[in-house]
Amino acid sequence: MRAILIVADGVGDRLIPELGNGEIGRTPLEATETPSLDEIARRGINGLVDVIRPGIIPGSDTAHLSLFGYNAFKTYTGRGALEALGVGLQVKKGDVAFRCNLATVENGVIIDRRAGRISDEGAELIQALKGIRSDISPDTRIIVKHTVEHRCAMILRGPDISPKVFSTDPKKKGEPIARSIPLEETKSAYKTSMILNELSEDFQRILEVHPVNAKRRAQGLLPANCILFRGGGTVPDVVPLPELYNCSCAFIAPSSLVAGVSIAVGMKPIEVSGATGTYDTDHRAKATHALAALEENEFVFVHFKPSDSASHDGNLAMKQKMIRKVDELVRIILDANLPDLHIAVCADHCTPLSIREHVADPVPLAIMGSQVRTDDVKVYDERSAAKGALQGLRGHDIMPILMNFIGRQKMFGA
Amino acid sequence: MRAILIVADGVGDRLIPELGNGEIGRTPLEATETPSLDEIARRGINGLVDVIRPGIIPGSDTAHLSLFGYNAFKTYTGRGALEALGVGLQVKKGDVAFRCNLATVENGVIIDRRAGRISDEGAELIQALKGIRSDISPDTRIIVKHTVEHRCAMILRGPDISPKVFSTDPKKKGEPIARSIPLEETKSAYKTSMILNELSEDFQRILEVHPVNAKRRAQGLLPANCILFRGGGTVPDVVPLPELYNCSCAFIAPSSLVAGVSIAVGMKPIEVSGATGTYDTDHRAKATHALAALEENEFVFVHFKPSDSASHDGNLAMKQKMIRKVDELVRIILDANLPDLHIAVCADHCTPLSIREHVADPVPLAIMGSQVRTDDVKVYDERSAAKGALQGLRGHDIMPILMNFIGRQKMFGA
Repeated sequence: MRAILIVADGVGDRLIPELGNGEIGRTPLEATETPSLDEIARRGINGLVDVIRPGIIPGSDTAHLSLFGYNAFKTYTGRGALEALGVGLQVKKGDVAFRCNLATVENGVIIDRRAGRISDEGAELIQALKGIRSDISPDTRIIVKHTVEHRCAMILRGPDISPKVFSTDPKKKGEPIARSIPLEETKSAYKTSMILNELSEDFQRILEVHPVNAKRRAQGLLPANCILFRGGGTVPDVVPLPELYNCSCAFIAPSSLVAGVSIAVGMKPIEVSGATGTYDTDHRAKATHALAALEENEFVFVHFKPSDSASHDGNLAMKQKMIRKVDELVRIILDANLPDLHIAVCADHCTPLSIREHVADPVPLAIMGSQVRTDDVKVYDERSAAKGALQGLRGHDIMPILMNFIGRQKMFGA
Repeated sequence: MRAILIVADGVGDRLIPELGNGEIGRTPLEATETPSLDEIARRGINGLVDVIRPGIIPGSDTAHLSLFGYNAFKTYTGRGALEALGVGLQVKKGDVAFRCNLATVENGVIIDRRAGRISDEGAELIQALKGIRSDISPDTRIIVKHTVEHRCAMILRGPDISPKVFSTDPKKKGEPIARSIPLEETKSAYKTSMILNELSEDFQRILEVHPVNAKRRAQGLLPANCILFRGGGTVPDVVPLPELYNCSCAFIAPSSLVAGVSIAVGMKPIEVSGATGTYDTDHRAKATHALAALEENEFVFVHFKPSDSASHDGNLAMKQKMIRKVDELVRIILDANLPDLHIAVCADHCTPLSIREHVADPVPLAIMGSQVRTDDVKVYDERSAAKGALQGLRGHDIMPILMNFIGRQKMFGA
């Protein structure tokens, strides 16, 4: 038996009065026609799930750690390593990874945290940092990789490196580059801070005189003459899913952070051309690739990002459009009629259009498949899910439940 | 946005056959008209909440620690310090506080644990103990304060003081005053026991010859000639609510124990004249003061005690009367129509009239407000709440959920 978990990012919402239908309001999920999602609900079991814990607002990373079955409080170690994994860097146990921004500094003060939203030229600049070494710690390897726009990732590898440091990003412009300081009284935290401060200065020296920046200045553009380090972290120390459940796991997730979590828990990435994570993402290609992946993997995870983007943008029409895209994606999975496929659909958190940020409200979950005892819920939305048979669940319960259905759980006890 | 939490003490109950209405019985909440509470339920979300954990009977102190969002198992350190805080003593970190009784002793044996329910004269007696010092431990400060009737509180302050001691209250008359013994093999527990035994004797010596007691004897009253120490504890080591949620918090709670818990978690007391905690408490004054407090505080907690007293008294008519008082209190809050106010109503535990003691049955919770996705529950009572959208909650989930609604939660992760 096989299972697919489809996560519609941020799709959960609150009551919107103008969607009211004579009532106090409806949520976008309630107000949008979703025949395929409703079919999952009708043929399955449903529930409202607290992704982390009631009242706790999930980030994208902690949410997915939880949805993959892990205790986020115990396993989450910061965004840096997850994002680095997600952009294709090999982050090993013991490595400390940072998210980085190419930024513009003038007389030590940050003018723009994104260096005028520099694009492809970023790669060329980062190339110049390759092979750099720390004088303070010659045995530390420094790996820097450009990802998109102003973004890059950095790994520190070697003995006595710690993620317990304040990073160098002052978080807003007009402030000087921060000096990293240790967050705990350990030799490794102290050493890591020293290295970060050294690299911060070294990178500035190299970037300042780089021809790309000379060209940018000539064009009246902001130079990308420094790198800000953020969110240092290590890879979560987890037993990977394939080992936990003795099954092969793959994922489709263009968003680098979610991809990073997926890699960290041992899933194999599946590239889907046209799956962009943006509004124009090719959801049909995602579905057909997921179906193909289900031929070789017992578990496939599909992440759908743009429902969250529409929510952050406060764009109701776009959110409803993205909900319909999710519904079409689900339709393709349903129509494939794979025997003994179990399909789970949920969100990683709610992002209400009125708030435009993540909130802690629980998310609707529906699971259908041959092994599922159904309930009376007929449609897929927040308030209907609350009446389903799955009660009091946390995000980390979903994977064990799915693995139970497809016969991949081991007995505890004898 | 703002939130108010109204706790109707002990209001939850069990099925009472004579309230049956042709059925197997009804609870007092089910059998009493509560239009205002029902409005909260109808416009909100509902659930049955296990205040501590399923099957665990909450005390008033542990219940409120949990309702304020803390793990009572980890943070509860005894009633003494909470009660001392509640009567206005400044209990500092490291202090060990005791609840005390003025009692009557004759030839070393307790004749009356409440010294004939001594009243105002207690204050004069306690005054005589002011400035007393321990010979065993001259660096220990001893602070004693009279509260009401035979009750007082004592703080031991100084190095190496421990709450891990048996106190001196034998719990019933006819027994000798107990000798405090250490509950763990530490220097500080041993020392604290020695001090308690010393003070027990010193206090007797002073009180025995006090003019108040001479007068009482002349009037044929029992002298208050000793002090029994009970329930030693330290202040709970918690991050206060205002720091956790970056918001201002106030409370209305005439009961000293609940007031103590409220102070321990960083809430500011609001005095309401006429709010007595007894059957004649001025519930309307509580409501209007709560509304005033909501102008300056993001969170206000209102405690309503006499529903519990009626339950302990086994008085059905009085319990129903107190339920109607709570309903009127809620009506005043509702009618104020404060925009974006989120209102939560629950109990701290159930006190069935048939049992006249706290039980572990879960309590009904209703939360209404602009950010709340409603459910189908139409009335506020135990069995209706069970059908609501809030499933599997513990008491400590309520605050995070409320803070999520009013935008005071921080995201966990990125």
